[in-house]
Amino acid sequence: MILVVEDSDEDFTALERVLKQSLCKAPIHRVRDGDEAIDYLYRQGPYANAEQAPRPSIILMDLNLPGTDGRDVIQQIKHDYTLKIIPVVVLTSSSNPKDVRDCYQNGTNSYMLKPMGLEQLKFTITDFLHYWLELAIIPDSSINQK
Amino acid sequence: MILVVEDSDEDFTALERVLKQSLCKAPIHRVRDGDEAIDYLYRQGPYANAEQAPRPSIILMDLNLPGTDGRDVIQQIKHDYTLKIIPVVVLTSSSNPKDVRDCYQNGTNSYMLKPMGLEQLKFTITDFLHYWLELAIIPDSSINQK
Repeated sequence: MILVVEDSDEDFTALERVLKQSLCKAPIHRVRDGDEAIDYLYRQGPYANAEQAPRPSIILMDLNLPGTDGRDVIQQIKHDYTLKIIPVVVLTSSSNPKDVRDCYQNGTNSYMLKPMGLEQLKFTITDFLHYWLELAIIPDSSINQK
Repeated sequence: MILVVEDSDEDFTALERVLKQSLCKAPIHRVRDGDEAIDYLYRQGPYANAEQAPRPSIILMDLNLPGTDGRDVIQQIKHDYTLKIIPVVVLTSSSNPKDVRDCYQNGTNSYMLKPMGLEQLKFTITDFLHYWLELAIIPDSSINQK
């Protein structure tokens, strides 16, 4: 399961469309901000029932989020013994070198720029899915397409 | 610069051939085991001259190495404030789920299986280069091909 942390409805709609057009059969769960991501991952609040919150195989994370920021969510994930094995891939419109550095410093597995335009987003997401779900081995590889 | 940590001459020759056939213009430096990787990264021993040991933009790491093991080298890199921003991608013949888990637990950015056969290795390396040097943003992106 791919957990998508994305506050913008417009960006998520585009992302979801691209994911569905791809051959990716992995289910997607979207959370809208950092607090909801934390609730989901720690199975608390609206996600207290573990069945409602299966562990994601990979997390696609926006950085600039209302409430708990994406950077803080990454720090929490990567300081947690159980959660830190989940690959976190940032997808953001920030190309600020400080963001790039800080994210890798905090254990982000990879960092991608959110491109302008649906066509370019399609290439980015297709390559992301190919690399992470087909080429790379991830701890929970049950969603791999191979 | 891509730092390749690989003890097998045969595997390195294949890897080097594929890297040179690709459009990758990034220089490659090979070290043969974990101890040499540590010397290189900490600029000590034969690499005491910093000019001889430029910081790699990404590390391609074999796991099973004589002397200091690849797993231990990853631990050292990912516990070092300066070095931890360098993406470490494992390329190994081990598909042992414990290795996969342990590597991500220790901060490995990504884990790939070393395929059998030169043709398949070519696909793996081409996709690795495309993802990490063209799609992903890495802290030192001076070697990006874009």
